Amino acid sequence: MQFPSKLIENAVEEISKLPGIGKKTALRLVLHLLKQEESATLNLSDALINLRTRITYCTTCHNIADTSTCTICESHRRDRTVICVVEDTRDVLAIENTAQYQGLYHVLGGIISPIEGIGPSNLKIDSLLKRVAEGSEVKELIFALSPTMEGDTTAFYLTRKLKEYNVKISTIARGIAIGGELEYTDEITLGRSILSRTVYEP
Amino acid sequence: MQFPSKLIENAVEEISKLPGIGKKTALRLVLHLLKQEESATLNLSDALINLRTRITYCTTCHNIADTSTCTICESHRRDRTVICVVEDTRDVLAIENTAQYQGLYHVLGGIISPIEGIGPSNLKIDSLLKRVAEGSEVKELIFALSPTMEGDTTAFYLTRKLKEYNVKISTIARGIAIGGELEYTDEITLGRSILSRTVYEP
Repeated sequence: MQFPSKLIENAVEEISKLPGIGKKTALRLVLHLLKQEESATLNLSDALINLRTRITYCTTCHNIADTSTCTICESHRRDRTVICVVEDTRDVLAIENTAQYQGLYHVLGGIISPIEGIGPSNLKIDSLLKRVAEGSEVKELIFALSPTMEGDTTAFYLTRKLKEYNVKISTIARGIAIGGELEYTDEITLGRSILSRTVYEP
Repeated sequence: MQFPSKLIENAVEEISKLPGIGKKTALRLVLHLLKQEESATLNLSDALINLRTRITYCTTCHNIADTSTCTICESHRRDRTVICVVEDTRDVLAIENTAQYQGLYHVLGGIISPIEGIGPSNLKIDSLLKRVAEGSEVKELIFALSPTMEGDTTAFYLTRKLKEYNVKISTIARGIAIGGELEYTDEITLGRSILSRTVYEP
C-alpha cells in the first residue's frame, strides 16, 4: 500500500505489529483517530506509556499488579490454603470472572515448551516450590493449565518437583463443555470424559 | 470484567474505544504489549502522538499530507486536467492502489447527509468550485462517491453548482463486480447494470 504521508505509514506500521491487526485494520484505526479530537489519541498513548513503564508484578504470585503485592494476595478474604497454578494473567482473570474460586494464585509466566525454547528455568517454578515449602498453610495446589502437550508436560514436571512436600495436587476437570452437544465434541475430549466419569448425583 | 490493576483497566478502556475493538481484544493487546520489550510500546505511542499532532492537510486537495502540499498535487507526472472527487483519504488510497488513475484528487471530507447533520457547508465544496473556476486547465471532474442515497445527493448538488463552468462531469461505472455471479448480485445493482449497459467490444 502507498501512503500519502510518512506519519500515517509509521503509525500503520506500528499498529499492525499488534497480534490480529493487519495493515488494513491499522489504517482504519489511524483514520478514525485522525477524525477524533486530539485528546483521544493523547489519552490512548498516555495509557499505553503508563501501562508499560509503571506496571509491576506481585512478588508472591507474579500476577500483574500496581504495587509489589497484588490485590488477591493482599486480601484477607481469600483462602490461603489453596494455590491455583496458571500460565498467565489472562487465566487469573478468566477464573476470577467465574466467581467460583476463593484461593490464591501462582502465575508461571508460560508453560514448558521445548519447541519455543521455554524450559523450567524460564518459569516461576522455584518461587512456587518456595511458597509450598515455607508456607505450611498451603494444603492444595490446583493445576489450571491448558489441555495441551505443553500443559501436560508442565503439570508432570511440577508434580515430580512437589513430590517431597505434603500437599494435595489436583487439576481442573476436563470433559464436555456445559451446553455442548455430544455429537459435536471432538473424540479425544469425549473419550477422556468417559474415562474420568464422575458419580451421578441428581 | 475485574482487572488486577488500574493501569491495565485504563489501557483496556482506552484501546476499546477504537472501532471494532472490544474489551476482550483490548485486554489481549495489553497483555501482548506487556510481554514485549518496553520499546515496542513506546514506539507505538510515539507514532500515534506524532501522527495526531504533526499531520496536516493538503491546502489544494485536502488530502492528508506531511506538508502543506500533498505528494500527488506536487507531482509533475500527474494529469492536471482531471480531478477525482472523493469522500475521504481512504478512497484516495483505494484508487491509488489500482494504479489506473493519473489525475488529481479532491477530498470532500464527507458526503451530504441530513440525518447526520452534514450539509454542503461542512464539506470542502467551495474550494472545489474555486479550483475549477481558477484553474482553466481542469477539463473533467470524476465523481467517485459511494453508491448510496448520500453519495447520489452529493453528486447531484455538485452537478448543479458546477453547471456554470465548462467542465465535463463523469461518475465511476456502477454494475456487477468483476468475478461476481449474476444470481448473487442484488436486484438494484443488476437493474442498473442493464440500464447503463455499454457497447460490447470483444
